[in-house]
Amino acid sequence: MTPDPGLASWLQLTLTPGLGTATIRGLLTQFGLPENVIGAPRAELARFAPREALNALGSEAVAKEVERAMAWLERPGNSVVTLADAAYPRLLLEIPDPPALLYCRGRTDLLNKHALALVGSRNATAQGMSSTEQFARSFSAAGLTIVSGLAQGIDAAAHRGGLAGEGSTIAVLGTGVDIAYPRSNAALADEIAERGLLLSEFPLGTRALAHNFPRRNRLISGLAQGCLVVEAALASGSLITARAAADQGREVFAVPGSIHSPLSKGCHALIKSGAKLVESAEDVLSELGAFRRTGFASTRAPANAPAPPAPAGGADEPLLDCMGFDPVDVDSLCARARLPAEKVSAELLRLELAGRVAVLPGGLYQRLN
Amino acid sequence: MTPDPGLASWLQLTLTPGLGTATIRGLLTQFGLPENVIGAPRAELARFAPREALNALGSEAVAKEVERAMAWLERPGNSVVTLADAAYPRLLLEIPDPPALLYCRGRTDLLNKHALALVGSRNATAQGMSSTEQFARSFSAAGLTIVSGLAQGIDAAAHRGGLAGEGSTIAVLGTGVDIAYPRSNAALADEIAERGLLLSEFPLGTRALAHNFPRRNRLISGLAQGCLVVEAALASGSLITARAAADQGREVFAVPGSIHSPLSKGCHALIKSGAKLVESAEDVLSELGAFRRTGFASTRAPANAPAPPAPAGGADEPLLDCMGFDPVDVDSLCARARLPAEKVSAELLRLELAGRVAVLPGGLYQRLN
Repeated sequence: MTPDPGLASWLQLTLTPGLGTATIRGLLTQFGLPENVIGAPRAELARFAPREALNALGSEAVAKEVERAMAWLERPGNSVVTLADAAYPRLLLEIPDPPALLYCRGRTDLLNKHALALVGSRNATAQGMSSTEQFARSFSAAGLTIVSGLAQGIDAAAHRGGLAGEGSTIAVLGTGVDIAYPRSNAALADEIAERGLLLSEFPLGTRALAHNFPRRNRLISGLAQGCLVVEAALASGSLITARAAADQGREVFAVPGSIHSPLSKGCHALIKSGAKLVESAEDVLSELGAFRRTGFASTRAPANAPAPPAPAGGADEPLLDCMGFDPVDVDSLCARARLPAEKVSAELLRLELAGRVAVLPGGLYQRLN
Repeated sequence: MTPDPGLASWLQLTLTPGLGTATIRGLLTQFGLPENVIGAPRAELARFAPREALNALGSEAVAKEVERAMAWLERPGNSVVTLADAAYPRLLLEIPDPPALLYCRGRTDLLNKHALALVGSRNATAQGMSSTEQFARSFSAAGLTIVSGLAQGIDAAAHRGGLAGEGSTIAVLGTGVDIAYPRSNAALADEIAERGLLLSEFPLGTRALAHNFPRRNRLISGLAQGCLVVEAALASGSLITARAAADQGREVFAVPGSIHSPLSKGCHALIKSGAKLVESAEDVLSELGAFRRTGFASTRAPANAPAPPAPAGGADEPLLDCMGFDPVDVDSLCARARLPAEKVSAELLRLELAGRVAVLPGGLYQRLN
């Protein structure tokens, strides 16, 4: 298909050296669409952008880059998504520094699905990778898109698991989206471009540069409602992603491990500072349920749940009798059981540990048997 | 030594079948000392205790039990501590159901030391037991008394580690204190009676009865400022102890492990419901530091400590310079060092762990080298 010619202006703006995402957003706010920015008098532009960058804006070099990108866009599966597109990820608009333009290979429909970032060590253990893939399969089967960074180890396992289900997967690259990095994951990258989505904010052809990766991490967390770290050493880049997630108001999750394993220390540090401990996919899904219900109001189901059934009677657990089999919150239970919240909570914990009660999203409890 | 004859009345009251701890406390509140209870008119007593129990109170059978206990008390190392004794653990007075009388073998001076409950699975892994013993050694070296339940596995490792340091250890039994249970820990029990403390609220000769153990667990947690669980399955008795600790307002700590290990599931459940994740002894000590400073106001020495000597100069530890070599309390140290209490406590803990500072009774600290 022929790309929208307006895209050339978006590309010209974003490919100009010296125009950062903040400057570009400032210019767009001031002048409107990129073609308006480009057509504005130089003197006016100079109030909002460095002169050097403005010189580059109309340069031959930038024009060549734009041409190259436009040619790339002609090839099937390739696209760019700009701040002005409906396909632009709504969650990214919440972060402080959203890129003006995303280079995409694959399914841009994934950009606005419910998503979970799943990251961890490149030097993961075999068990860590196996757990990751199983987690990712469960999330994907539940409809969550798995976002990760295409690194070896945990990232790759996360993508593989994501591809196995309907949630699929997004790989956010620290290189150009046309660069196979790391080489060892080239086949995986092709598969993701085919059935998932490869994404990058960096211009085509951008090679692996160390300083781009931490910057990239804010998109991994930014695209998702939560961030799960499976194995991470204390100095791991995964902790940068987790910190970005927390800063962005996302839920942070971490999988614990042996206190003697260096690859658990990062996860333990996260749990100590407030991340949710995760043993199973359900731990994450139940937590994100709340996000789902509140994060995307349009998809919210009506809240008028049916009234609880009459107590079953005769059981040896008075609190279970009060619960019925419909989800119920602690306050209602306290009222029904005429017990203080502390006591009810303690009882609920015991019943939960005994496998008789499940915790649902939104602080609801449900009797299981 | 000859035991206090008043003890016979305490024993008579507590050895009477049908008089539970709550009833006994009610009677003591009403009538004063046990001898007053025993001497009170039956009709008056009947308002506060079941008639059957009152019939038993003066019975031959109870008199025989008292005699037997008095004979046991003659033997070296044996003692009982009653609610009226100064040696009665102050922390136990805070729990809802403190026993009226404790049977003791060994060092009753341990009953009012800073203490940590350390519990876990009987079927622990080798690594779990090794970690436990190392943790317990560190705590004991820092002056914390290790409280546990003399079970196989984690409990036994906790006691062994406790015995290695100055904090020593208390084993709270679910049997009579004269019963070796489990048999496999008989030698350990003797060592604890020798250098630590064996303790039980159950009458001498009480054999292992399943329902006594959960009840016993409230004393393990009640005697300590915090409770650390090392390895525990979901249905573990250790979780009962941890829950008792939480109910008693104690800090709960848990050591994480692999999500694939059944012995970590209990610890993970605790962390999910608010327990602190513990990777090292320091994690616990830094948390309990606050307890130490505030927990024992009554025993605190007057604050007018002698003026500090001039700084030794040239040392790499400014706080040590402020300390001098005389015992000093935290408040004075804060003033001298011009640092907030939090910072000083953290520093003191570090110095304590480094063996450079000792904690003295009454919240005083002393420089060692």
